Amino acid sequence: MKSMNKKTPKVEFFKRSECPVTNTLEIIGDKWTLVIIRDLFLGKRTYGDFQVSAERIPTNILADRLKRLESAGIVEKFPYQDKPVRYEYRMTDKGKDLQKVLKALKDWGLKYIPGTSAKFAEDYQKK
Amino acid sequence: MKSMNKKTPKVEFFKRSECPVTNTLEIIGDKWTLVIIRDLFLGKRTYGDFQVSAERIPTNILADRLKRLESAGIVEKFPYQDKPVRYEYRMTDKGKDLQKVLKALKDWGLKYIPGTSAKFAEDYQKK
Repeated sequence: MKSMNKKTPKVEFFKRSECPVTNTLEIIGDKWTLVIIRDLFLGKRTYGDFQVSAERIPTNILADRLKRLESAGIVEKFPYQDKPVRYEYRMTDKGKDLQKVLKALKDWGLKYIPGTSAKFAEDYQKK
Repeated sequence: MKSMNKKTPKVEFFKRSECPVTNTLEIIGDKWTLVIIRDLFLGKRTYGDFQVSAERIPTNILADRLKRLESAGIVEKFPYQDKPVRYEYRMTDKGKDLQKVLKALKDWGLKYIPGTSAKFAEDYQKK
């Protein structure tokens, strides 16, 4: 168990506040978490799907973040295969409600960061 | 210089992608950065203002994140005092355009996280 703990990335927590922004960031305010949420909106479901994304999420971070998202009620996992059992991940309604956050991030990036494009997302969603 | 580098918190970068979401997160996708942006929207301007926030941002992180925000063109600094020179920080128009991101985070938090309240923000803005 100790060696697993070493692998788990440290996440810093804020001191308690009533602020809805910081409390939301406590749950999703981590770049990799938001990359996974973006991928879920693009229709990705399995470890394999998440791992081929351009950002190349490390497996241990992926596993950790999916676990956090599950315990926050943002994703649910369903077995899609036996022996070995494998799971796919789907957004709950609470998770789907993060769409406005993602859209706001996307719009700002398209407006201010040269070289960004939403073309990949559109292509992916057409599939 | 080496001892200063030790203090600067490490920020992990994604491998290059065209995605406007991840490129935006490269700039602002850090919890403390978003806390500073929230505070700027609340009208905070100086180191002293930022440091009294409930989340208790450590000074070295505050300095680092303000420097990043300045080089990203999201804040500008203006001297408000000589000897010693002190600066205040203000959002640029590019920074103000992050308002939708903050609003989306706030709305989600208010809807899903029990105990959160926007009362503080409203009180602060009345001042």
